[in-house]
Amino acid sequence: MKKKGSRSERELFHLLWEHYGPCVRSAGSGSTTKPSPDLIASNGSRVLAIECKSTKAKKLYFPPKEINELILFSNSFNAEAWLAVRFDNKGWYFILAENLTKTKGESFSISYPELLEKGLIFEELIGKYKQNKI
Amino acid sequence: MKKKGSRSERELFHLLWEHYGPCVRSAGSGSTTKPSPDLIASNGSRVLAIECKSTKAKKLYFPPKEINELILFSNSFNAEAWLAVRFDNKGWYFILAENLTKTKGESFSISYPELLEKGLIFEELIGKYKQNKI
Repeated sequence: MKKKGSRSERELFHLLWEHYGPCVRSAGSGSTTKPSPDLIASNGSRVLAIECKSTKAKKLYFPPKEINELILFSNSFNAEAWLAVRFDNKGWYFILAENLTKTKGESFSISYPELLEKGLIFEELIGKYKQNKI
Repeated sequence: MKKKGSRSERELFHLLWEHYGPCVRSAGSGSTTKPSPDLIASNGSRVLAIECKSTKAKKLYFPPKEINELILFSNSFNAEAWLAVRFDNKGWYFILAENLTKTKGESFSISYPELLEKGLIFEELIGKYKQNKI
């Protein structure tokens, strides 16, 4: 899982540094059993805890453990819990963990149409302009 | 440098998780030129950016670049910039980056006696009890 997200994760890491604020890439879960989001960034007032995913599939599933841990981590850290999702060549979309759809099988999912509806683009995430939705 | 601090860094990582709040180990500078403290921890109100060092020498030197980057990172992140130092078998001491002694050669240093005088122990760092000094 760590390997797969690695290249796009690094890209987002640099985007955040350039347009938002300091960002840290987590050493990951290889060395520890503690939950840890892929990226943590702050602009000095908002802290973003971000789990990154990219996929060529039309729908992305998240194990409940991953989402619950991200939410717990973020609550204790006082960070916002975000999923950064990139469907094949579609650019980044960001969705709050709590806004994912819960599927019957207890896991969480997001499809590309859902992401367009509920997700934010990068500039919206970092607050450069207000989102049009709602 | 990454390797050397690794074992003690992990130990501190677990201490923070257990007694303070969520903590992230940085993937480090191997993959990027961006500055990144070894650990970032938060109890929901205070964020600690921590650079870890352990040594068997009597005095520890820090390159100015490392200290300046830690301070810059922390200012932008809205975190406190800490050095966690462990002299051989002496336990952890914590000192704010800005309280390090600047040596003639432009680098920063700390000796064990200085650390005893200016440093905090873990319980003081995390605010479990007030420090006696000052």
